[in-house]
Amino acid sequence: MKKFALAILCAAISTSAFAGKEEDQQIKVRQSAYTFMAWNVGKIKAQVIDRPEAYDKNQVIAAANAIAAVANSGLSVLFGPGTDQGTGWKKTRLKPEFFKQPDEVRKLATDFNREANELAKVAQGGNVGDIKAQFGKLGEACKACHDKFRVKED
Amino acid sequence: MKKFALAILCAAISTSAFAGKEEDQQIKVRQSAYTFMAWNVGKIKAQVIDRPEAYDKNQVIAAANAIAAVANSGLSVLFGPGTDQGTGWKKTRLKPEFFKQPDEVRKLATDFNREANELAKVAQGGNVGDIKAQFGKLGEACKACHDKFRVKED
Repeated sequence: MKKFALAILCAAISTSAFAGKEEDQQIKVRQSAYTFMAWNVGKIKAQVIDRPEAYDKNQVIAAANAIAAVANSGLSVLFGPGTDQGTGWKKTRLKPEFFKQPDEVRKLATDFNREANELAKVAQGGNVGDIKAQFGKLGEACKACHDKFRVKED
Repeated sequence: MKKFALAILCAAISTSAFAGKEEDQQIKVRQSAYTFMAWNVGKIKAQVIDRPEAYDKNQVIAAANAIAAVANSGLSVLFGPGTDQGTGWKKTRLKPEFFKQPDEVRKLATDFNREANELAKVAQGGNVGDIKAQFGKLGEACKACHDKFRVKED
């Protein structure tokens, strides 16, 4: 009975977000992951670049942890075959080239993970200059993948 | 010059996700945060309830960390006045009651954070029974808020 109640609870949490075609579900979840991450990137940018006087150590740690958690969450399963076509929350911007260059994808993903985890570490240290420098490296890792594998927006 | 390049990089990462009305942006980001979290909830459910034989300690740790990172990311700023109306990725399901019961909201948010952080801790321990029990508590915390403040889907 307890097991059943737990299953119901879990279903209540997770089912509704994941109706529809498998490819579109993957696209929806990755768009969500990146949007959530971008929000956290924006918070760090606001506090270490735009208005360093507003720097709040705990907020930056929380944001950096969120970025690292996204990076470590196994996003690769959300890039299944065929997901360069389809619509999650909106039409995907993934280029077909993504599936033709697996070694390059792996390299870029590894770079991104390394820089995100390093940022979470540096954020703990609380040195704004160090955070800013590492934030720049993360930005470069993001941009490298966008430039190669994401369709530009108008 | 380096600073300028960094600002461009950051803009490249974060701007496009956040165009539009402030209220709708908040709704979009929180829908993204919860969708990303629900995906991670689903992974834990799959590994400790549906198919415990597939349990992978590191994957469950990563998923639990992602849930905790969402919980700790300061979601409350995404529930600004007026955001019981509006459209992020889709129309919001937040009930107007949310803004009339701040003490209850605070209690439910505190419960959710505590259970999410405890799940991340328990996941590190690697005991499937403990993870399952704590996962149930997290599910109850999610459900308590959904029942009070989220419009039911058809």
